[in-house]
Amino acid sequence: MKETFIPDVVISRLPLYIQTLNRLLREGKSVVSSNELGLLLDMTPSQIRRDLANFGGFGKQGTGYDIIKLMESLREILNLNQIWKVALIGVGHIGQALINYDGFNRNGFEIVAAFEHNPGKIGKKVGNIVVRDIKNMDEEMPEMGVKIAVITVPGESAQAICDRLVKIGIRSILNYAPVNLQVPEDVQVENIDPVLKMQKMTYYLQ
Amino acid sequence: MKETFIPDVVISRLPLYIQTLNRLLREGKSVVSSNELGLLLDMTPSQIRRDLANFGGFGKQGTGYDIIKLMESLREILNLNQIWKVALIGVGHIGQALINYDGFNRNGFEIVAAFEHNPGKIGKKVGNIVVRDIKNMDEEMPEMGVKIAVITVPGESAQAICDRLVKIGIRSILNYAPVNLQVPEDVQVENIDPVLKMQKMTYYLQ
Repeated sequence: MKETFIPDVVISRLPLYIQTLNRLLREGKSVVSSNELGLLLDMTPSQIRRDLANFGGFGKQGTGYDIIKLMESLREILNLNQIWKVALIGVGHIGQALINYDGFNRNGFEIVAAFEHNPGKIGKKVGNIVVRDIKNMDEEMPEMGVKIAVITVPGESAQAICDRLVKIGIRSILNYAPVNLQVPEDVQVENIDPVLKMQKMTYYLQ
Repeated sequence: MKETFIPDVVISRLPLYIQTLNRLLREGKSVVSSNELGLLLDMTPSQIRRDLANFGGFGKQGTGYDIIKLMESLREILNLNQIWKVALIGVGHIGQALINYDGFNRNGFEIVAAFEHNPGKIGKKVGNIVVRDIKNMDEEMPEMGVKIAVITVPGESAQAICDRLVKIGIRSILNYAPVNLQVPEDVQVENIDPVLKMQKMTYYLQ
């Protein structure tokens, strides 16, 4: 099913398609046109057809897309038909909010561990997770089968943590620290920084 | 200084430039080349020169960019030389984490209010903020001069809150709810959804 090269920006949009298809399903729909999808996603219908054509195309001209079929195909493309084990590094406010966020589990991402260097937090429970000593991260994380790491440490420590994660073979990093992490080509970093988003929006405020 | 049309994707990158220039300044540098910036931002030097040329260009061939000057120009372009008042709707785990996050204040975004519908939370203090009754949001938010709203309510309530915000004139919305909000053309929505980021990264995991 996978083509040799799909632009990263197209891949970024696929989860949005899934989110929107899920919503349509909940509303009781079974078929959707590229027009309707375009309205919901604020994209042109032709852009949507082009995106989905990257994967061989799912719809027939004039009849719209079968929602369940399209969603299943997109989930398969994104490797979402399995549980992914996630570890968190840094149990501050954001870390705790993430441990308590049920959206991960609902979507097949299981937070299996959280690591901290603060001795006051190690051994304590947050949600269902017992906070672990970051000293043991390099051994324990691969043992647990973790494939995705979430960095929620302060900016100063983020690159050092990132380097350790890369060294133990983690290739997907979600970064909440306000720094641009340096990683090898085969490692994916996605940044979550509300300040960057706000700094962009103010461009449009007079 | 502003051109008639700059692609949104270029605007999105400007905060990243500022973040990186800040870091270089802290490291004691005063000049940076498009090569160095490219390495730090994982972009080609020519893409960087093209981005910055949108705003008239800041560097001279061969001498690199004056970091302070470039940063000041970018901050001006993004309207960052002022304090922006921010309100938060929803004081759950994420809302509380955001109120306690010092990155907003440090970057000129002041959270001046938080609204909730849960009577058990209204009137209580979170950080320096006394939680307000969401019933009064439509009057109180404009009175306080809020220009940016952060939605941290559950998905089911997000669109209704968003509609109210649009009605009272809010044009910048940072959305943590896992829904694609429908807004008029002149309203900016930026979504923060870690699940969408993870669903994208798994594409690259085998």
